[in-house]
Amino acid sequence: MNIREEAKKMKLDAPILAASSNEQRNEALRLIKEALMARKEEIFAANAQDCEAAKENGIASAVMKRLVFNDAKLSDVCKGIDQLCSLPDPIGRILLRRELDEGLVLERVSVPIGVIGVIFEARPDAMVQISTLCIKSGNCAILKGGKETAKTNRTLFGIIHEAAVQAGLPESCLLQAELHNEIDELLQCEKDVDLLIPRGSNQFVQYIMNNTKIPVMGHADGICHIYVDKDVDEEMAFKVIIDAKTQYTAACNAVETLLIHRDLASVFLPRLARALFRAGVRIRGTQEAEDFIARSPETAAEAETIEIMGEDDFRTEYLDLIVSIKVVADVEEAIDHINRYGSHHTDSILTRDDAAAGRFLQMVDSAGVYRNCSTRFADGFRYGFGAEVGISTSKLHARGPVGLEGLVTYKYLLRGDGQIVGDYASGRSTFHFKDLDIPGK
Amino acid sequence: MNIREEAKKMKLDAPILAASSNEQRNEALRLIKEALMARKEEIFAANAQDCEAAKENGIASAVMKRLVFNDAKLSDVCKGIDQLCSLPDPIGRILLRRELDEGLVLERVSVPIGVIGVIFEARPDAMVQISTLCIKSGNCAILKGGKETAKTNRTLFGIIHEAAVQAGLPESCLLQAELHNEIDELLQCEKDVDLLIPRGSNQFVQYIMNNTKIPVMGHADGICHIYVDKDVDEEMAFKVIIDAKTQYTAACNAVETLLIHRDLASVFLPRLARALFRAGVRIRGTQEAEDFIARSPETAAEAETIEIMGEDDFRTEYLDLIVSIKVVADVEEAIDHINRYGSHHTDSILTRDDAAAGRFLQMVDSAGVYRNCSTRFADGFRYGFGAEVGISTSKLHARGPVGLEGLVTYKYLLRGDGQIVGDYASGRSTFHFKDLDIPGK
Repeated sequence: MNIREEAKKMKLDAPILAASSNEQRNEALRLIKEALMARKEEIFAANAQDCEAAKENGIASAVMKRLVFNDAKLSDVCKGIDQLCSLPDPIGRILLRRELDEGLVLERVSVPIGVIGVIFEARPDAMVQISTLCIKSGNCAILKGGKETAKTNRTLFGIIHEAAVQAGLPESCLLQAELHNEIDELLQCEKDVDLLIPRGSNQFVQYIMNNTKIPVMGHADGICHIYVDKDVDEEMAFKVIIDAKTQYTAACNAVETLLIHRDLASVFLPRLARALFRAGVRIRGTQEAEDFIARSPETAAEAETIEIMGEDDFRTEYLDLIVSIKVVADVEEAIDHINRYGSHHTDSILTRDDAAAGRFLQMVDSAGVYRNCSTRFADGFRYGFGAEVGISTSKLHARGPVGLEGLVTYKYLLRGDGQIVGDYASGRSTFHFKDLDIPGK
Repeated sequence: MNIREEAKKMKLDAPILAASSNEQRNEALRLIKEALMARKEEIFAANAQDCEAAKENGIASAVMKRLVFNDAKLSDVCKGIDQLCSLPDPIGRILLRRELDEGLVLERVSVPIGVIGVIFEARPDAMVQISTLCIKSGNCAILKGGKETAKTNRTLFGIIHEAAVQAGLPESCLLQAELHNEIDELLQCEKDVDLLIPRGSNQFVQYIMNNTKIPVMGHADGICHIYVDKDVDEEMAFKVIIDAKTQYTAACNAVETLLIHRDLASVFLPRLARALFRAGVRIRGTQEAEDFIARSPETAAEAETIEIMGEDDFRTEYLDLIVSIKVVADVEEAIDHINRYGSHHTDSILTRDDAAAGRFLQMVDSAGVYRNCSTRFADGFRYGFGAEVGISTSKLHARGPVGLEGLVTYKYLLRGDGQIVGDYASGRSTFHFKDLDIPGK
């Protein structure tokens, strides 16, 4: 398959999908759900082959869990499809309606982005989630899934594509790329692909970002911080920190660095260290943090296991039961540290002090800034957005968890009866700019 | 000056400017206006030197007009500043307020983008417009103006920066780059510069887009089309086409290609050709267009001056009194041509037929799609947005004319009292997603 040719064709067909009705797109979603349920044995059989091969290749059991596509996962993706169907149409919404002059009316209308390339990790449920999100938002998509689930992906894609076409969507609404070299071809399609959404390891996302002129939505690093201010509920702090570090260590929104107010360091820090040790978390601390922990009789012995960290560790996403600890003078130093070393993903302050919290929420330059809760809340489902295609740390277009809303843009429609700019330049006509009611709003 | 070092410092200071109040930013705008008026002789003197040097270098008189900064231009920029002051604060707006669960409230709040690099053509008024737009939207800016007005730019920048600092904005809110090699340095600052806005020739914008990892807002080409459908008011069509081509040929929203319905070609096309010839416009036509014009006794002689065009001409932005003409079968062929050869900027259909117009507005994949009016309306001022930093043909973030709204993004604030994700994962707690009223809305 020649990805460039296919992308070009898709780009020209994209307005056809964009012009489809919400009913038609929902019908496609319903047919997809029905077909997935009707043909589940076929999917499970393909998945069994993938899992067998993965086992033979000695894949880690944590990864293995992601590869599996079973009744539970099928039920989850079907629930997701139901939810998508129930959401209002994200396209064709009138965002602005303004009479520029008598008989000259400007509208800003939401439209799909166009052609989206999605490269995702080996999780077959992602194939269903992403393709249905793209259909609901009227976007054509080129999908490349992880090779470990190649057979499952192929089966799922075939079912999804067939159902979409059956519902009357254009043949070229979805395309599956299967070969690794097709990724590089895809990266060259800047004329025809409007957006790339890569999901996977930091290095992989970084590679994509460095090798394409297509805008990339997503994030390479998730270096999230929790700053513990001096006036804090200690029990709450332990609970939140342990959750943020251990609830799911492989997540991008897991905490990697703890910043502790110096006034707390002599009592709170050893207690926190003990709680972390008990939870199986290894500590990489600054010399000062290690000193505080070593000075306490309760943690002196364990302090020996602390690795003294260098500055570079503050830029490391561990994705493991490891955490960096640094002692800071105040909220200002915490803010400076986070803006300097963080990845602008999600950071939290734990404090009873409204002034310190206000300062932190204002000054930390991240997609998510929290007070008194776990960084793990950074997620489309937990924000109530429904499914998400990823989390963006870019400041342009969509930031934070990206759902349907991040998959649309807008265009301006202007309707007149022969107006020319010359008349306004010469003063024969003048604009009066009157915002009009938007029907149904 | 080391642009990288300065950009790094600016990035860390950006949250300080972002935290400034609307009153403070408006105060800066007022002080800038006062200082510009009080020190106008100083500005005019610097500008006289620039203009003198430009004349010695034999600059074209059309370009010369742009370089001049006189009482009229000063009055224009001061009016622009007044308008900016009167606009509501674009930052700190609450865009979403949702209770995820008891005591856990999510807000989406508008914030400045951060650090913006603007590289603009030799128009001293642009220096004032762009720096004041950035101040109003709370963005730090690195400004590089055209070298032809170096002395004027330096004087203006000095006045603007002094007034901004006097109003209490941070020293590093604005920075002027003056050397051409500093542009290349700026392009390397992807860690610290959030957005680049280049204005200038196609080649220049293309160069920027091809040589940086920083997101670029703007457009390289403005290949705008007018499609004349078969059922059209001929007089209106002539008037709109002549306006779109000749009112300001150097503008990106001037029309470059006319697509004419075949049913109109034998009568309408020769008449249109005559109107274009009279307005001093040269025609590059397809062989078919030339044939229609040559067959008419009224335009047979002039038809000899038509250059027969190749496919590449359809991708050429003339920015001159030249227009391409192609005969098409119907609105579908027009749409296909525009989506294939256009630059997704602004395209217009002239027709009395609602169905054809509806199809065109729906299917043309451009930032602006018009019916029965000139493409020249694509402009921030004419849309009622006030000042603009440029027109974007990108589909991400801002599309079309970009004003204050395109210079902000948002962040998510989450306030809790110790909530952890583990409780929601285990089912001990559940989200209830309740959208709350936004104060003042």
